[in-house]
Amino acid sequence: MVPHLVPRWPVCLFRWRAACTLGACVPQSAWARASRTPGPGSPRGAVGTSPLVRRGGSSSSSRAPEVMLTRERYPVQRLPFSVVSEEDLAAFERITPGRVVTDPEELEASNVDWLRTVRGCSKVLLKPQTTEEVSHILRYCHERNLAVNPQGGNTGMVGGSVPVFDEIILSTALMNQVISFHGVSGILVCQAGCILEELSRYVEERDFIMPLDLGAKGSCHIGGNVATNAGGLRFLRYGSLHGTVLGLEVVCPAPPPQVCTLLHPQVLADGTVLNCLTSLRKDNTGYDLKQLFIGSEGTLGVITAVSILCPPKPRAVNVAFLGCPGFAEVLQTFSTCKGMLGEILSAFEFMDAECMQLVGHHLGLVSPVQESPFYVLIETSGSRAGHDAEKLSSFLEHVLDFGLVTDGTLATDQRRVKMLWALRERITEALSRDGCVYKYDISLPVERLYDLVSDLRARLGPQAKHVVGYGHLGDGNLHLNVTAEAFSASLLGALEPYVYEWTAGQQGSVSAEHGLGFKKKDVLSYSKPPAALQLMQQLKALLDPKGILNPYKTLPARA
Amino acid sequence: MVPHLVPRWPVCLFRWRAACTLGACVPQSAWARASRTPGPGSPRGAVGTSPLVRRGGSSSSSRAPEVMLTRERYPVQRLPFSVVSEEDLAAFERITPGRVVTDPEELEASNVDWLRTVRGCSKVLLKPQTTEEVSHILRYCHERNLAVNPQGGNTGMVGGSVPVFDEIILSTALMNQVISFHGVSGILVCQAGCILEELSRYVEERDFIMPLDLGAKGSCHIGGNVATNAGGLRFLRYGSLHGTVLGLEVVCPAPPPQVCTLLHPQVLADGTVLNCLTSLRKDNTGYDLKQLFIGSEGTLGVITAVSILCPPKPRAVNVAFLGCPGFAEVLQTFSTCKGMLGEILSAFEFMDAECMQLVGHHLGLVSPVQESPFYVLIETSGSRAGHDAEKLSSFLEHVLDFGLVTDGTLATDQRRVKMLWALRERITEALSRDGCVYKYDISLPVERLYDLVSDLRARLGPQAKHVVGYGHLGDGNLHLNVTAEAFSASLLGALEPYVYEWTAGQQGSVSAEHGLGFKKKDVLSYSKPPAALQLMQQLKALLDPKGILNPYKTLPARA
Repeated sequence: MVPHLVPRWPVCLFRWRAACTLGACVPQSAWARASRTPGPGSPRGAVGTSPLVRRGGSSSSSRAPEVMLTRERYPVQRLPFSVVSEEDLAAFERITPGRVVTDPEELEASNVDWLRTVRGCSKVLLKPQTTEEVSHILRYCHERNLAVNPQGGNTGMVGGSVPVFDEIILSTALMNQVISFHGVSGILVCQAGCILEELSRYVEERDFIMPLDLGAKGSCHIGGNVATNAGGLRFLRYGSLHGTVLGLEVVCPAPPPQVCTLLHPQVLADGTVLNCLTSLRKDNTGYDLKQLFIGSEGTLGVITAVSILCPPKPRAVNVAFLGCPGFAEVLQTFSTCKGMLGEILSAFEFMDAECMQLVGHHLGLVSPVQESPFYVLIETSGSRAGHDAEKLSSFLEHVLDFGLVTDGTLATDQRRVKMLWALRERITEALSRDGCVYKYDISLPVERLYDLVSDLRARLGPQAKHVVGYGHLGDGNLHLNVTAEAFSASLLGALEPYVYEWTAGQQGSVSAEHGLGFKKKDVLSYSKPPAALQLMQQLKALLDPKGILNPYKTLPARA
Repeated sequence: MVPHLVPRWPVCLFRWRAACTLGACVPQSAWARASRTPGPGSPRGAVGTSPLVRRGGSSSSSRAPEVMLTRERYPVQRLPFSVVSEEDLAAFERITPGRVVTDPEELEASNVDWLRTVRGCSKVLLKPQTTEEVSHILRYCHERNLAVNPQGGNTGMVGGSVPVFDEIILSTALMNQVISFHGVSGILVCQAGCILEELSRYVEERDFIMPLDLGAKGSCHIGGNVATNAGGLRFLRYGSLHGTVLGLEVVCPAPPPQVCTLLHPQVLADGTVLNCLTSLRKDNTGYDLKQLFIGSEGTLGVITAVSILCPPKPRAVNVAFLGCPGFAEVLQTFSTCKGMLGEILSAFEFMDAECMQLVGHHLGLVSPVQESPFYVLIETSGSRAGHDAEKLSSFLEHVLDFGLVTDGTLATDQRRVKMLWALRERITEALSRDGCVYKYDISLPVERLYDLVSDLRARLGPQAKHVVGYGHLGDGNLHLNVTAEAFSASLLGALEPYVYEWTAGQQGSVSAEHGLGFKKKDVLSYSKPPAALQLMQQLKALLDPKGILNPYKTLPARA
């Protein structure tokens, strides 16, 4: 029996109970752009001023409070790199004329992460336009022992994209050209600084889509996506960047030494360009070197260009937003949906009731379905609208009949699809307005995914304002967030290492898609054995022997 | 207009013009098993005796002519490894009791590749059952400076799986246990020696399929598939193993040295087990080390276990076998099919008229459609038979109306699907019966894919018996094969480096999916720049400092 709450199944319907207010319905991408992207003309952008990214409930102040310096907040020691001198600035001016930024106000946006949790004190930002310029910069910095922080859209969650001390910021913002696009194969080759959303638009005009999509698309750079092995909303369907990235061009600080000196590297002072920018789906000639750099967070080399396989644009996209009575029903809905929607399933996201309360309270978004303990968002992407609608309709009828879902709404037109997605995509934003946020991004066996959230609620009690769980259920990826009015060491102590130990106990990953960056580098060993960690250190030493590239990130400090 | 030659479109029909004779219709997997797999009880298997894998037309002889030793046929020098002594054999007997093979007859099958083109003279084959045994073996061999040749199903095309000289053969044949399978996520964890076809059967019983399939499935090992980054028939749909392999357990000859000695490795004599055998779809904790080993052909470590993501088993599989009047029409059929079949397209293979002649002549297979310059095999896999049939029917009507296809046949039941696939899968076998085969496995921009075949036909003239092109068109992967009555240096000289230079001129890959192994290692530089090659050498030196693991393979000899 289809309950009365969903009167028009399987007709394509849209029940949006209450319209968003204009203010709360700032499109996510516009929000991202306004708050995250330092535009070329105003590099400071709105990071320092936008109320949207500031923590705490108030949005009336015209200026966010200053973020504490990382070196003051965390127990971290500056490594003995050189300090940028006037001569260095002059040299940089020769390499990137007119694109050496030293104005402190302009630097501010690139010194602070968008979550406003870490802050470096870099005195110089370079904006190369070509791979050769990047190579010259790295050669120079290697010679001079100057630390470098590669930076894309600065949208990372773990403090990996901003300096910890005074590292030189190497921004890919001006490396934003599409190099080629092949209309039959869908292979896109572009510079690393292209903004994901702009690439999406570019390939969509040519009947393809990007194989990844994420909330930060309005400002994140494709090079940063690859460097952090971004997951996102299309992962379930199109898989990992390790599969869809076909080629990379990367600059490493140190060149491969001559073969005869392999065991005792005699490093030549040169920024080696590693051109593996192939546009081939298959290439088994030797080791697949590009894989080393995917997810290495800019610590092994600077990605300067990317070749990526774009899937054909689906002709029909449907989004169903459903309410489920419990987590067991969420799981059963997932299994059912994999079977009945099969090849057209492109996303399966979930959020709990507290998430819905937060997007309602802070952003004025209203649930399109009746209040439920859990909500799932299911997206289908297919080549024939009629077939997709039939599949979806059979599926929805089934889950309603079996009580797995108690209410739901369906969207097929683009505007409504976006509105439903906003409920899920803007949770991060709502959380950042709720106070101090403790963020965890965890992979777990799907059947245990929510246990940690319930467990923590009981453990933390009134210490926490909210404990919420949401994320990419289809990928076994939980975003666990805890909010409190202000930072509290005792709350942190109750969370860590408890969360990491709990995760390790389930053979989970303590960083599913956000990476380790600065903030999570010390928890690597919860998910990787000592032998793996040692090999990582060796790879770092091989490719960046002086350790100048994105120091203090990804790997724990050496003992 | 639908031409009269295909009278029953869009009805699901099957026009098999002539039944295969029983002899010629030996199921591919049985053929593979009989000819390639040294079974535990009879390790020599049929390699030495089966007429099916012997070159030359005759199948009456009971014993194939002996294959020339690699060291006699190719200009290769033995490296200064130790020679296995009686003490070594005693030590191996302690590590793998009762599983140390020294009988020359038994060793023969593992010394010769299945194409019967290269032959080593190993005196010992070890059959470990556990990762710990592999670790002990590698530790021992590292200490004693003994070279090791890891071997799976010995089905490689480039001589990577057999010794060149007297390397110890480390077979994964007895490491054939499934470790776990997760019925919701479809994640399979198993030992490296599991045979692909047996894994397929195992997961199919549980409503999943393996993400890869290839002609050698009846004997190839999953560990070997991963070590060689096998592509195969499902690549178009499920992508590369770099995306579908979730975790690996690998044993390296040398352990990571201590962090403090990174630049001057002080190698400890231990076979380090690198356990990255995670069962998570997402895990961004540090560098993705497993990627290093995918496609490294056993030169960096021995893969002992694999965690792999299996897609749900499609409920409907259709195969269309079509005749095309020209290569331009093959390409247009591909573009049309991507658009109209969309998400259900799971394979797009092509073969030319000469391929069809060869499978007819040598294997007695008969074309199910009228003689055409080109044939394509299109497979769909979907979750709803009715929808798939409708899509396929619209597509077929379109390509026939537009003259892209002149004749075709469609199969939906499993037996007929297999018969159509046999036409494509058994080309390799037919070629091996045609005489001496010169094999090339190339990636090219799809629109230039066949130009090289036409070009070579003109270039070689009567020197060649056959010049044929077939392969995974959907992946831009051409299998180019040239046959002649016997080996000829002048024919080889006309082929190489011409084929490689032609490919490099198109920014193609000189090895799309077969790898480099022994036979192609010296052509690596046609597809990779010097900086990449040097980094590969460094990685080899890092993980296998004495170079004991699968020597003479993958990387060119050092100057």
